[in-house]
Amino acid sequence: MLKVGVIGTGMIGQDHIRRLTTMLNGVAVTAVADVDTAVAAEVGARIGAAVRATGEEVVADPDVDAVLVCSWGPTHEQYVLAAIAAGKPVFCEKPLATTQGACLRILEAEVAYGSRLVQVGYMRRFDVAYRALKLALDSGEIGLPLMMHCAHRNPSVPGHYRGDMAITDTAVHEIDMVRWMFGTEVGAVRVLVPRHSRNGGDLQDPLLLILEMADGVIVDVEISVNIRYGYDIRGEIVAENGTATLGGPASVAVRRDGWEGIPVPADWRERFLQAYDVELQEWVHAISLGGQPLGPSAWDGYAAAVVSDAGVDALRTGERVVISMAEQPKLYQEAAR
Amino acid sequence: MLKVGVIGTGMIGQDHIRRLTTMLNGVAVTAVADVDTAVAAEVGARIGAAVRATGEEVVADPDVDAVLVCSWGPTHEQYVLAAIAAGKPVFCEKPLATTQGACLRILEAEVAYGSRLVQVGYMRRFDVAYRALKLALDSGEIGLPLMMHCAHRNPSVPGHYRGDMAITDTAVHEIDMVRWMFGTEVGAVRVLVPRHSRNGGDLQDPLLLILEMADGVIVDVEISVNIRYGYDIRGEIVAENGTATLGGPASVAVRRDGWEGIPVPADWRERFLQAYDVELQEWVHAISLGGQPLGPSAWDGYAAAVVSDAGVDALRTGERVVISMAEQPKLYQEAAR
Amino acid sequence: MLKVGVIGTGMIGQDHIRRLTTMLNGVAVTAVADVDTAVAAEVGARIGAAVRATGEEVVADPDVDAVLVCSWGPTHEQYVLAAIAAGKPVFCEKPLATTQGACLRILEAEVAYGSRLVQVGYMRRFDVAYRALKLALDSGEIGLPLMMHCAHRNPSVPGHYRGDMAITDTAVHEIDMVRWMFGTEVGAVRVLVPRHSRNGGDLQDPLLLILEMADGVIVDVEISVNIRYGYDIRGEIVAENGTATLGGPASVAVRRDGWEGIPVPADWRERFLQAYDVELQEWVHAISLGGQPLGPSAWDGYAAAVVSDAGVDALRTGERVVISMAEQPKLYQEAAR
Amino acid sequence: MLKVGVIGTGMIGQDHIRRLTTMLNGVAVTAVADVDTAVAAEVGARIGAAVRATGEEVVADPDVDAVLVCSWGPTHEQYVLAAIAAGKPVFCEKPLATTQGACLRILEAEVAYGSRLVQVGYMRRFDVAYRALKLALDSGEIGLPLMMHCAHRNPSVPGHYRGDMAITDTAVHEIDMVRWMFGTEVGAVRVLVPRHSRNGGDLQDPLLLILEMADGVIVDVEISVNIRYGYDIRGEIVAENGTATLGGPASVAVRRDGWEGIPVPADWRERFLQAYDVELQEWVHAISLGGQPLGPSAWDGYAAAVVSDAGVDALRTGERVVISMAEQPKLYQEAAR
Repeated sequence: MLKVGVIGTGMIGQDHIRRLTTMLNGVAVTAVADVDTAVAAEVGARIGAAVRATGEEVVADPDVDAVLVCSWGPTHEQYVLAAIAAGKPVFCEKPLATTQGACLRILEAEVAYGSRLVQVGYMRRFDVAYRALKLALDSGEIGLPLMMHCAHRNPSVPGHYRGDMAITDTAVHEIDMVRWMFGTEVGAVRVLVPRHSRNGGDLQDPLLLILEMADGVIVDVEISVNIRYGYDIRGEIVAENGTATLGGPASVAVRRDGWEGIPVPADWRERFLQAYDVELQEWVHAISLGGQPLGPSAWDGYAAAVVSDAGVDALRTGERVVISMAEQPKLYQEAAR
Repeated sequence: MLKVGVIGTGMIGQDHIRRLTTMLNGVAVTAVADVDTAVAAEVGARIGAAVRATGEEVVADPDVDAVLVCSWGPTHEQYVLAAIAAGKPVFCEKPLATTQGACLRILEAEVAYGSRLVQVGYMRRFDVAYRALKLALDSGEIGLPLMMHCAHRNPSVPGHYRGDMAITDTAVHEIDMVRWMFGTEVGAVRVLVPRHSRNGGDLQDPLLLILEMADGVIVDVEISVNIRYGYDIRGEIVAENGTATLGGPASVAVRRDGWEGIPVPADWRERFLQAYDVELQEWVHAISLGGQPLGPSAWDGYAAAVVSDAGVDALRTGERVVISMAEQPKLYQEAAR
Repeated sequence: MLKVGVIGTGMIGQDHIRRLTTMLNGVAVTAVADVDTAVAAEVGARIGAAVRATGEEVVADPDVDAVLVCSWGPTHEQYVLAAIAAGKPVFCEKPLATTQGACLRILEAEVAYGSRLVQVGYMRRFDVAYRALKLALDSGEIGLPLMMHCAHRNPSVPGHYRGDMAITDTAVHEIDMVRWMFGTEVGAVRVLVPRHSRNGGDLQDPLLLILEMADGVIVDVEISVNIRYGYDIRGEIVAENGTATLGGPASVAVRRDGWEGIPVPADWRERFLQAYDVELQEWVHAISLGGQPLGPSAWDGYAAAVVSDAGVDALRTGERVVISMAEQPKLYQEAAR
Repeated sequence: MLKVGVIGTGMIGQDHIRRLTTMLNGVAVTAVADVDTAVAAEVGARIGAAVRATGEEVVADPDVDAVLVCSWGPTHEQYVLAAIAAGKPVFCEKPLATTQGACLRILEAEVAYGSRLVQVGYMRRFDVAYRALKLALDSGEIGLPLMMHCAHRNPSVPGHYRGDMAITDTAVHEIDMVRWMFGTEVGAVRVLVPRHSRNGGDLQDPLLLILEMADGVIVDVEISVNIRYGYDIRGEIVAENGTATLGGPASVAVRRDGWEGIPVPADWRERFLQAYDVELQEWVHAISLGGQPLGPSAWDGYAAAVVSDAGVDALRTGERVVISMAEQPKLYQEAAR
């Protein structure tokens, strides 16, 4: 039974706690903390976990084997570093940290520790459809990949959503996904700005992101965040001899009113519900068996930050931005695929 | 933590044990038994469970809160009765028992006990696609149901598979499903015998089963058990104003060699893998919370036996067979839907 | 340029005239007649065709090479017989005639003439989707056929539509189609009566028709004539190693309002528009080249009448009705496939 | 009966002649010419048309009402100008002419004539799927268009196919289509060069073409000309509230060998066969009724040439190329949509 401490008991923290305590195998939540101590107290009481004053105390708790960081983004660095310092595995919700510098400090700490402790919460790698897509590609049945067409569509975004977030919060999932899918880094990025959707008010929406992978694969990503009809994630890999397309989660088809159709998910929770379960279950299993985490690494978190930042530059300047990354430490070279 | 004893550690038993010990939440396997004591010993040692000499000893074990019956069909009755006698919840793999008489004895024992202890392992009710289908029907958006078209296709069956098994082992899943889907009993059954597939050797394959529900809904079920191309479960409900069709588990679509397509599952394990997880997880939750099981009841097990037997009669005689069932005990009247 | 006389200038007659005069190649309409002489005069004037007083005069017109019969069903026999007597090719809208006796008289006359002059207007054989389905079957890629599942759905039917018409007017298209698809006759028929749709008022709707082909293939046909959502024609052939399913005419897919879907045709005109064009164009070509018609023969018209009548018996009696047909004249033995 | 003269009796010319003489209504081919006089003589004899020594003689033939130009591209200008000089309607296969200058000379001549005589053979506007797509867009049900994702895939290309042809011969169909679809001109073009397919040898394949429409709609077009699996034309319009996707021509779906799929067309003939029929039939009707052609105009032919040339520049330079076009003559302003 892996004993997990959870730092941050807001929406995503509580969702993970629900998962850990009622859905997953071999894990218990033994300690929690939150900047809002009342919420932490309520959650801790409900699940029978100790309530600690700070994230650092959660990390230090001898009854905590591993740490889940679900707090506000700018605090991720300090808690991840604390976990590394304590030699405890840490699952950090995305982003790994809010600046490239902070990501680099985490990389350094983990490299100094000598083996992987950090996993970052990019859940698409655990989605059954993305895994089937990667399997189809890796089988070789369609040849080498040449392009990928993606769409990331939200029905709407909250009022505080600003232009850069289309890259840093939304497209960042595709940025992580393509690095994993193709096993290579992003070399350059462009952002094209199509006609403006009136649904978005002042927000520049949609965008067309163009990622050039280091091996020449070109990925186009449509980002539409106010498209009303639903939450829709699309992807098609174009290879030398054929294509492979991300399947959908269609459980039922209905014919009525002159129409034959399938429902589109309402939001990302519905679409990726199961991927989150798999993500954490596999993490629990890997850590419990005494091994390193197998999911997205601190390097993946750093790379996502670098490419996102370049994407924001590309959006602001209208130019093609070449990606410049730190040298990849040896520790992560195996984990690249 | 619900402590479960498992009777029967053959293929399905081991599969459930794997599920309980590595996938599901809030459950531990504390005791096992099998007619093959060597296998029981091996499995028990592997997972750290006590090995008991008989199923009855598993039931009696004070370290066992609830029982899972995965043994050979003809032994189901004795273990389920033992669990009821001990007042312990029991999950019994299908069939509940191999004769209607045995099923009735279980009903009587459970009614005498006074509340539900038994759940039978019809897993389709836990499949995400069947649930979405039922939700679409129950929403009323297509009106009242009038017909349902089903297909149950196996790529092949083992050598010991005999003609009646197309009803008792294969179509029995549709028999349970339509009773749950439409919330009513089967009133009559016919079996039509189409042209013979050469893939089946002497076996009469395929069959066309016609179920007449008590409210007039007619269900046709194609049973094809040697159709080679894959394991395929289809269902379309025809209602007054539209239809609802069972969705597929397609995770990827591939275009190659002049073709655009999706893979078909290879067998029932692949198709219903997740339904088994949900089935047992929900059972564990319901029992742990001190409640009665919510899944298929002993009455459902009895009804499946009656309709299956009538189906076998219909196959042998070529006639329409009217179903005659015992009166439904009050205990089960709520659970019918 | 094939000179065609059209008997009957009602809705279907005018539709065929539009087709012949504005869509098809190598044909002109030179004479028309209708029981409503004013309509005939109007149509004749519009397209520059002679207006004749009777159908027989159209047949006799020396400026008429071939005849199209689009008049009221009970008059079909007399005009088809007149055309045969004149040795002129005749395309007769379905049904060939309204009684088996009348069909037999036509067969006798044509056999006496010595070669095929008659084609009956079953247009599904000319539909691109049905042809692709037959091609997939005939290719052998899925093995020998064993079953077929069909659905014939109308959004609504006019007030004069009576119970028998579900067989004689609606299912008759499937009756002709399966004889052509499988190249064999129907051996027996049953009609099952499901729960009653409230959309149909007193009308018994839907029905489940079961056709047993002479070679054992079993065909189930859902007939729903008030299903509101659209006009939908479905068909799936189940063969030894796989299945082949009738494709749809979906020209566009739309995602909006939480839904991803394709439109369903509103009525049979929309669904089979093109099949009618192909049907008449191929007839014009075949006749112009001096050959016999290649489409459904008088024998096919007779067989459809016999099976329809048996279907009506089956509906009325609730019994399985074995089909008894006249011996097939040699003239039609080649044309059976 | 419209009397048509055909200049050029090579592959496409003969295909159109087959269409005009055996498929379409209200048209006859009365004269032909070809640089290969033997072929012209053979074709003329077969269909009973006069054989003329030159294209100009075909135009001048008093038995010719309208002209079809199917000759080698560099000769298009002279025959189209001859037809305009003679005041005869002329259908010119794409391209209108091989240089922008030649296109401008045709525009001038037609403007001087004072009404439209020229139609250019961009057949996609007549394809049932593209028309349904445009109808869905124009209905307003998905809001204003913002982006379009296209793919143009060929299984292979002939040995003489050179890099520029991916723009001038292949993508030119999308260039015409988007101008028609969105009713606006292309403002700028980029060509991105993805990883190289080994199927294409030295050829740069695939390409990603980015078209910026004058109203801000951005269109990305994947051009893959050696993708082996089939001929596949895709298009999805992304609008404010939803999307509309080009339907496919799938007439049958087959399940076999672990797969459920639909066939992909083998080549453009199969995919657009019917569009060619509709294109010419509508042209024949429009001309016969004494009106102007309704299909792509000389202006559309000029615009396609300008955008293609810009695309070739963009491919060679790697830069975004802004389109500069002549002022649109009044004659064409209505026809823009």
